[in-house]
Amino acid sequence: MRTLKLTVAYEGTGYVGWQRQLTGPSIQACLETAFADIEEGPVTVVGAGRTDAGVHAVAQVASVGIRHNMAPDVLQRAVNVRLPADIRVMRVDLASPDFHARFDATAKVYRYRLLHGPVVSPFARRYGWHLRSPVEIERMSDAADVLVGEHDFSAFRAAGSATKTTIRRLFTVAVRPAPDDDWWCDGSRSTVIEVRGSGFLRHMVRVIVGTLVDVGKGARDRCDVERVLRQGDRALAGPTAPPEGLCLMKVEY
Amino acid sequence: MRTLKLTVAYEGTGYVGWQRQLTGPSIQACLETAFADIEEGPVTVVGAGRTDAGVHAVAQVASVGIRHNMAPDVLQRAVNVRLPADIRVMRVDLASPDFHARFDATAKVYRYRLLHGPVVSPFARRYGWHLRSPVEIERMSDAADVLVGEHDFSAFRAAGSATKTTIRRLFTVAVRPAPDDDWWCDGSRSTVIEVRGSGFLRHMVRVIVGTLVDVGKGARDRCDVERVLRQGDRALAGPTAPPEGLCLMKVEY
Repeated sequence: MRTLKLTVAYEGTGYVGWQRQLTGPSIQACLETAFADIEEGPVTVVGAGRTDAGVHAVAQVASVGIRHNMAPDVLQRAVNVRLPADIRVMRVDLASPDFHARFDATAKVYRYRLLHGPVVSPFARRYGWHLRSPVEIERMSDAADVLVGEHDFSAFRAAGSATKTTIRRLFTVAVRPAPDDDWWCDGSRSTVIEVRGSGFLRHMVRVIVGTLVDVGKGARDRCDVERVLRQGDRALAGPTAPPEGLCLMKVEY
Repeated sequence: MRTLKLTVAYEGTGYVGWQRQLTGPSIQACLETAFADIEEGPVTVVGAGRTDAGVHAVAQVASVGIRHNMAPDVLQRAVNVRLPADIRVMRVDLASPDFHARFDATAKVYRYRLLHGPVVSPFARRYGWHLRSPVEIERMSDAADVLVGEHDFSAFRAAGSATKTTIRRLFTVAVRPAPDDDWWCDGSRSTVIEVRGSGFLRHMVRVIVGTLVDVGKGARDRCDVERVLRQGDRALAGPTAPPEGLCLMKVEY
C-alpha cells in the first residue's frame, strides 16, 4: 500500500462541497469513485480542508492509500479520465506512509475576490462577490490587522457549528486591489482578500470577508472588529460572504 | 430614434455564435429579444464581427436603434436583467445617428490562448486549446511576421466561404507567454497569440493559429507559411484551431 499526496483543482459551482454528502455530488465522492474504479475496491480520500458548497480550489491537497503499483503520472492520467472536467488532479506525489492531508497541514491560504463596478463580466461571475457600493481598501486592510495572531474566532464561524476548540492562528490577512493584467484584461476591477492561517473554522473566511466588507463600506470600523473578536458572538459579526468568491489556494506541510 | 453603441462581453460556450441562426441560441438573438422586450417591437442589433460558435468576446461592439428615451445606464440595467448571465452589456454609449458597428470598424483585436502542461486546470478549460506537445514561441513569432501587412488570405479561411474580397490587412501578430500572475495563479502555463487587423475572413484567426502551432511544433517553418500565403490554397495551411481558445478583445473605430 502506497500513500499518495494529490494536488486537486476544482470549480466548486456544481458541488455540495469537498465532503461526501447524501444531498448531492461532492469533490471527495468523485475522487473516491475514480480511485475505486482503478483499485477495483473501496478507497478513502482525505482532504486537507472541507471547502463549502460552491467554493473553489486551485490546490486542495488530499491523501489516499493505493495498492495499485502504477507510476504517479500514469495514475494521474487514469484518475483524470475518470473525473468530470471541473475537477482535475494537478499533481500526484509519493508521500511517506503516515502522511495525512488533514492532520499534517501546517497552514492554508484562502483567497476571496470582490468584484466592483456596475456590471459583472460573464467571465468573473462564478468567481467573485459583486458589490454595488464602493469599499475603502485601506480601512479594510487596517481592520484586518486585528485578526492576525492567535485568537478565539467564535464570532467568525457558522452559527451552531461544533468543534473542540475555536482558537485558530492567522498569519496574514491581506486586502489589496487585484492586478489589472488579469486573464481577461476586460477592465473589471476587483479586490482580493488573502488569508493565511494554521486552520479555519467552518465559514470563518467568509464571515471575516463579510465583516471586512462592512468596514470597507463605512458601516463598521477597526474597533468594532476588535470588539466582535473579543465578545465571540457570531450575531455581532458581519454577514457570511457568498461561497463563489472563495478559493483554497494552497496547503502547507 | 437614437443610435446606441453597445460594448458586449460573452462566454460563447453555449452559443451557435454571434449571428442569429435557426440551429440554436445566438448572442445576437438574445440581445435582440432583450431590446425588443424593452422597445415593445422588433429590434435589429448589428455586431462588428460575427464570432463563431464557442468563441468568446470581452468587448464585441454592436449598434442598435432605439426609440425608448431612457438614460444609457438605465437602459443598460434594463437589458442586462433580460439577458442570460453569460452575456453582459458592459457599456452603453450614445452614438452618432449613422454609426454602424460593422461598416465603421477600422480594426479588431483577437486573442487566442494555448494551454500547456500535462493537465488543464478546471478554470482554463473553457478558454484555451490544450497542447500536449511543447511549442517554440520564437519560431512561431518569427513565422507570424510573414502574415503582417496587406495580403490575400485565401489560404487562411474556412474552405468554401464566399466573400467579395479575400484581401485583408494585419497590423500585428504577436506570440508571447501569458503573464504568470494570472487570475488563478495556479501555475498553469499558457501562450497568447494576439492578432490586430483591419478585418478578418471566416475562421481566419483560427487557421492562422493552427498553422503557427504547426510551426511551433517544428512541423513547418517560416518559409512554409510564406508559401501557403502566396499560393492561397486552404488545403496547404494548418488545421483550424478549436473555437474555445479565441476571444474578441477590442473593436476600434
